[in-house]
Order: sequence, then C-alpha cells, then structure tokens
Amino acid sequence: MTDASPTPASANIGVVGLAVMGSNLARNLASREGNTVAVYNRSREKTDHLLSEHPEAGFIPAFSYEEFAASLSKPRTAIVMVKAGRPTDAVIDALVEVFEPGDIIVDGGNAYFPDTIRREKAVRETGINFVGAGISGGEEGALTGPSIMPGGSDESWVTLGPILRSIAAVAEGEPCVTHVGHDGAGHFVKMVHNGIEYADMQLIAEAYDLIRRGTGKTPAEIADVFSEWNTGELESYLIEITAEVLRQVDAETGEPLVDVILDQAGAKGTGAWTVQTALSLGVPVSGIAEATFARSLSSHPEQRAAAAGLPGPAEDFHVDDADAFIEDVRLALFASKIIAYSQGFDEIRAGAAEYGWSIDLGAISKIWRGGCIIRAQFLNRIADAYAEQADLPVLAAAPYFADALTRGQDAWRRVVVAATQAGIPSPAFSSSLAYYDGIRAERLPAALIQGQRDFFGAHTYKRIDKEGTFHTQWSGDRTEIEAEDTH
Amino acid sequence: MTDASPTPASANIGVVGLAVMGSNLARNLASREGNTVAVYNRSREKTDHLLSEHPEAGFIPAFSYEEFAASLSKPRTAIVMVKAGRPTDAVIDALVEVFEPGDIIVDGGNAYFPDTIRREKAVRETGINFVGAGISGGEEGALTGPSIMPGGSDESWVTLGPILRSIAAVAEGEPCVTHVGHDGAGHFVKMVHNGIEYADMQLIAEAYDLIRRGTGKTPAEIADVFSEWNTGELESYLIEITAEVLRQVDAETGEPLVDVILDQAGAKGTGAWTVQTALSLGVPVSGIAEATFARSLSSHPEQRAAAAGLPGPAEDFHVDDADAFIEDVRLALFASKIIAYSQGFDEIRAGAAEYGWSIDLGAISKIWRGGCIIRAQFLNRIADAYAEQADLPVLAAAPYFADALTRGQDAWRRVVVAATQAGIPSPAFSSSLAYYDGIRAERLPAALIQGQRDFFGAHTYKRIDKEGTFHTQWSGDRTEIEAEDTH
Repeated sequence: MTDASPTPASANIGVVGLAVMGSNLARNLASREGNTVAVYNRSREKTDHLLSEHPEAGFIPAFSYEEFAASLSKPRTAIVMVKAGRPTDAVIDALVEVFEPGDIIVDGGNAYFPDTIRREKAVRETGINFVGAGISGGEEGALTGPSIMPGGSDESWVTLGPILRSIAAVAEGEPCVTHVGHDGAGHFVKMVHNGIEYADMQLIAEAYDLIRRGTGKTPAEIADVFSEWNTGELESYLIEITAEVLRQVDAETGEPLVDVILDQAGAKGTGAWTVQTALSLGVPVSGIAEATFARSLSSHPEQRAAAAGLPGPAEDFHVDDADAFIEDVRLALFASKIIAYSQGFDEIRAGAAEYGWSIDLGAISKIWRGGCIIRAQFLNRIADAYAEQADLPVLAAAPYFADALTRGQDAWRRVVVAATQAGIPSPAFSSSLAYYDGIRAERLPAALIQGQRDFFGAHTYKRIDKEGTFHTQWSGDRTEIEAEDTH
Repeated sequence: MTDASPTPASANIGVVGLAVMGSNLARNLASREGNTVAVYNRSREKTDHLLSEHPEAGFIPAFSYEEFAASLSKPRTAIVMVKAGRPTDAVIDALVEVFEPGDIIVDGGNAYFPDTIRREKAVRETGINFVGAGISGGEEGALTGPSIMPGGSDESWVTLGPILRSIAAVAEGEPCVTHVGHDGAGHFVKMVHNGIEYADMQLIAEAYDLIRRGTGKTPAEIADVFSEWNTGELESYLIEITAEVLRQVDAETGEPLVDVILDQAGAKGTGAWTVQTALSLGVPVSGIAEATFARSLSSHPEQRAAAAGLPGPAEDFHVDDADAFIEDVRLALFASKIIAYSQGFDEIRAGAAEYGWSIDLGAISKIWRGGCIIRAQFLNRIADAYAEQADLPVLAAAPYFADALTRGQDAWRRVVVAATQAGIPSPAFSSSLAYYDGIRAERLPAALIQGQRDFFGAHTYKRIDKEGTFHTQWSGDRTEIEAEDTH
C-alpha cells in the first residue's frame, strides 16, 4: 500500500505533518462526507503508520511535495500541522514551490500572530492564499471536533469554509468555526483564547485553595462542589475537569492525586504573548497577567525556599459557615471570570482596530462554545451582549454581566477579604476586583500620577475644566502655562 | 562665532543632538574640570542658540559630521542624544562613517535594549565601540547630575568612565554611574528602573487615594503626611515631590491642582517594555504590571463612562482612627515598595543570566541613590543586602526586608481589606500582598493547574515524591504512566 502512487487530483484537502495533532485532524477530515484527504510527512514512517492503522480513512499518501500537490484537486488546499517557527516556514516554502496561484496553505499550528501576518504577506505575492488558523481543543478536539479560528483572505474562505465547517465542533447546532478576519486575525484570537484560559484556570485554582483551606474539605469533597457548580451558571469544561482531577486518587500512595503533583505550573508561552500584546495595545488584561505570573512564581523553587520563612497571619484560617463561604467563592469566581473575559474581548477589540480586522465579537464567543478548553454556557451570554450592542465599550458593563457583578460584588469582596486576612494568595481574584473598582471609579488617583510626571519630566497634563495641555513651572514660580502636547 | 572652524582635535567629548536633554548634558559636561565639549546638531539653529546662550561653556561647534570628528581628540567619544528609533540609527550610521576603530559612540537615549544589542553588534564589526547608556533624571538631572547606566565594552569604559563620573550625580560621595555590563545591559537596567518607577508612583497614588477617601483630609493635609513620611524609611524623591504636587493650588479655580488635573495617566512605553521582557524571562513583576495597567485603564474614558453605573459597596468609607489608618497605609506602602523593588531586581538578575551580563546588583542600587527619579534612602538597604549575599534568590527575603515585611504585614492586610471593603481600587497594594503570600506559600494550587493541563492537553506533571515526568491516562483507565518530558 505504501508504494502506491497517488491518484492524481483526487483529494479535496491535504494535511502536512502527521504527529498526533496532524494525524487526528486528518482522520477527522476523512471521516466527514465529501472529503478525500491527501497526507504527507517529512519522514515516511509516520505516513505508513497512519495508513496501516487507519485503512478506513482512505488516505491518499504522498512521499514528496510534488506528489502531494499532484494528489490535490484545485484550488489545492493543505493544512500544515507542524511545529511553530522554522519548521512551519520550511513547509510553507516547500508548498509555495509546488502550489499555484489560487491554492490555499493553512497553518493550523500555534503561530504567534505577527509571524502569521508576515507569512501571509510573503505568500500573497505568489498569488497563493495563506491562512493562519488557530485550532483549539488539543489532540481529542482535533479528532472529534475542534474550535477553529481561521484568518486569511475572503477568497480562501470560499473553499475552506465548507471543509472546516465539516470538521469543527458543533454547539447548539452551529459549527464552531468562523472567518475571523484577514491575515493574522485567527491566530490573534486563538492567542487571546489561551490567555483567557490561563485566567480561568488560575481563578479555579484559587477557588479550590480557598475552599480547602477555609473549610478543611478533602479534594474529593471539593470535587463534589465543582460538580454541583457545573450544573449552574459556571457550567464549563474547565469546571467539569477540575472535579475529575480533584476526585482522582493516586494509586501508589492512596492520596488525592492533586496532593502528590508538584505545585510548579508549566506554561507554553501563549499566556505571555497575550499579555505582551495587550501591553502594546494599551489594554489592561490584569487577570490574565496575574494568572501568567502566578505560574512563573510557582516554578521558581529556589526563590520559594528562600522566602519560606516570611510570616503569615497569626491566626489560623477557618470559616464558620462552610456552605455560605462556598457560595461566596462561587459568586466571586463568576464575577472574576466575567472580568477575565471582558478583558480578553477588550484585547480582541483593540487588536482588530490596530490591525484593521473586521472581527464579529459575538461570532467569536459562539465558536468558543464547543471544541475548545474554555467552552462554557456563559459564552451564550457574551454572544447576546454583542448581538444587543456590537460596539460595546466594555463587556462587563453589558446588562447581563452588570447584573451578575451587582449580585456578586458583596460576596466577591468577602472572599478577597478572607483571603487577605488568611494569607492565602489570590492574585487573580483580587486583581479582578481591583479592575472592577477601577473601571467604575468616578475619579482615579491617576491625576496625582499626571502631577508627578509633570513635576519630574514636564510631561504635561490635561484639565477637567477646559481643553488644552498644561504644565506647571515647578522649578520656577509654579504658575501654569499652556504647553505643546508633545509628551 | 558660528562661522568659526572647529579647532582640530581639541575636544575630549562630543554631544550630537542639542534638544533640551542634549544641551543640558553638554552644559553639564562643559562645566566639569578637564572637559572640552564639541557639539553638533542636524539643524544649525540649535547649535547657534546653545553657543550664544552659553558662551561660558567654551563649546566647540561643528556643522558637519566631518568637522565634528575633526574636533575630537582620540579615541573620539560622542554621546548621541536624539530620539530613539530611526533618528538614532541615522546618527550612528553617520558617525561610523567619520569615526575610526577604537572611537566610542554612546547612545544616551531611551533605546529598547534589544535595539542596543543589535546596534552594538553591528558597530563592533567596524572596530568602533558602541555603548548604550541609560540616563535618568530628566532635563534637570542631565544638567546637574544624572544617574547613568552604561553598557558596552570594557575598552570603552576606560575612556568613558572618567568622563561619565565627572557629570553623574553624587550620592554619599560616590558618583551615580557604573559599568553595568556588556552591550545592552545599560539600557536593560534603565528599562527596569523605569518599571520600578511606575510601580512606586502607582503605590503612592493608591496610598493618597485611600487616605483621602478614608479620612476626608484635604490634599494639602495629605501633603503634610507625605512630608512627614519623607523623614523616615520612605524618604525618597517621589515621596518628596508628591507632597509638592498635593500642596499646589490651582490659581484659576482656587482648588487643589490635583483636583483639576484630568485623571487619565499617560505612559511612554518603558513600563510596558519592562513587563513584556519579564514575561519572556518568566519573572513575575506583578506590581509593575498592575501599575502599567492602572495607567491604561485610566486613559479609556469611553470604557469608564460605560462602567460608571456598576455598583460599589453600600456603606460609605470612613475610618475611625485617622492616625492609625495613616500609619497602616505607610507600612503597607513600604511593604509593597519592597515587593516592587524585589521584583525589579529579580528581572535584572534573570536578564543578566539570559544575556550573559555580569551585573553587580548592589552597584545598581547604589547608582540609583542619586540623580534618578526613584532615588531613595532605601536603596542603601538593597546595597547592603547584596553585599551580604550577592546571589540572593529573592531580595524581599533578605534580613532587613524580611524584618520590614514581618513588621508591616498586619497593617498591609488591614489596608487591603479596607480598600476591598470600601471599593477603592488598589491593584498595586493587593497584587504586592498576593505576591508576598504566594512566594512564601508552602504549597500552591499550581498543582491543580498541572492536573488540569495534564487532563486536557497531556502536558504531564512531576510528583513531590519521586523523580520523573508522569501522565494520567484520563481518557483511558486513569492509571498513571511515566511520560517523556516533552511538554
């Protein structure tokens, strides 16, 4: 079988790169009505293995880029599933050699969106379409239905749309894929998705920690709390799997698995990208930042050892009414989660403005309802909010979320107070609440900062009572002058 | 005078770029024994103006790069004071044309350190020395004595050292300049200096806001509080000028100036760079991040207007014992400040390791004692800590700071609790405390995050009780297997 020549031009879609993600995506494609899938991998072994393991898929194998191109009907469409960075560039260069104008190259890896913008621009000059597509859902999602965030040209979407719709997850009858916007828009949105995921996970971890330390409940008992929460407004994949993880018992020690896992969290960089990009855009994504920093703090054991002697509060932490405290934590988690998503959507809005993408924020929330890690009931409410007002300045202020925050704020404050008094680190909870109190503040002490900046650097300030830009002559007679707005 | 030809090779130092910073630096250089200063500006007017205004300086004017080079004794040494980015590159290119191997080009602007690394590498190939030097202290500091953070080669330091020592600020008898490290080290350290400055300013702003809202004191009364604080462990330039700003009355309205300044804080990007770099290095600089985000939050009036209706706590905020509360705020400010500096020094340590710079952290704290915006008594304690232990894993855990944190933590918690209950945003206070509680925690819920990551992405985890990397087969029989450490 592996020596068969490819049937010319008989596949409507091809996959390059047959590691687990690529193989699973190829199998997903092959399983859908109307698709015939060409496959290529740099080393022949993976191709042979996939074909022998999955004869039912009817894959058309190729053993060179020329064969691969010949096996695809026009416009040729290939999804590249190789490592981000140089391997991706190498495959794109090879495909550009054998493809023709009008063909489509899709990068389905986790590329950093500026790389996607650069690649799209370079490939476009050949007349070939380049599409950066974020694919969320991991290995399982690739096989059974991921959430897909493609960028690229409108022309590419005509061909690609039906193919991606055929393999995407389905949520409430709708496939979890939409044409996000041009060039790097898809990878940008996937990046923010991952940033929100960091925040969501950190918030859940803080909720678990507070309940455990405050009530003395076991991980298995807290698993039941999360299972219960998963029947209400917090219903989501992450809450569901948290219960699974907390319920798991380590076979070797008989202890809860969570207690034998080393408490140093890893990261693969997309959280950091999200925050770095937000900083360039001037968008305060403090919840995502705190979540990213909490992971890096955890993974410096030598610093934690050095700081281990620093004291906490004198009194032990114990809540009197466990049920009431757990309900407070639930409300605090939901409120903080609203802030994390509001900040994430703020970043997408700002990114779209900066890069000239026309992004339908409601459509983004809908394609995250299935297939991806942050899938949640809650996303329907976000879709509703943007359906109501497409240019919402800040998601948290939309009626449904404003109601939830109003309902939850007292509990949220009680939880942050309890954590603060107990010495339990809750950076994401407290940062989200500080953002809430900041964004709603009638007056911020930023005015003092402007005064300081004018004092030491003549950076000027604006006034509340008239137009213009002003400077106080601090080192002179301290009168105010009108200044050029250059700082 | 402006038509005079330059005296050949009679200046030991030159300045290119005669806007305010460059002019002031040139005047500072000319005022020191032993220096003769050549000056050049792209447009002749600025040069003529400087010479006519300051005949006492004995400047040697040049009206072309050739004249400028001819006016300098060897090794020629020029400090470039032009805008960061392309203007800097243009001047460097021009100087490389007229300079010779062994000469020295100093970029005294606010360059982003990766640009400095790139420039140093390119210029080094010509045999000319390129030095990126952070210069802090603004226009006033440039004239009277800045804090200077030069990178570059050891060879360049032989010539440059005495010149920079002659113009730097002096603190406790020592000039505020040291050879920070090679290539981009100086601009890196200057960047972190600015990030710490952001955190320090935000903490002061939060302290002011809490005192004002909690006690009802006027800005002038709070100015007295800051003046009082400036006699103790918080003694610093920023505390001093905060009192000045708060005491200032607007001539037009008779109101405190701080009340007529628009509460939207500007930023020039170095805070964002500091955080972006820390994210790449895996260093949690949460205080600097929150300070940077607080400025961006403040400067989105349309979002603040949309969120203005979100409710705060039902009860008004008023403290019973104003003096006790103010003392709590003082302790909280000092504790939070320790965390901000600890995080900043952590970033310098990590940057030095990443880029192969040999940076003496104690020497850095000493050169910040004068001339720059964050100059403070406190920096002597940092120098002491690094003198005691040069490879300190985390500054906050050094004895003096650990004592201060131990002494302050109850007050710090009370202040964060008060802010949380009162609905007053204190992102930097609360984030610093969360960092403190995180770094000293015996056990973090990061273990749960590792469990979640293993569940949805097979990212694996480590165990507390044995070596190796493990994965639970979540979608199989849920047994644990040893895994390759690839995630």
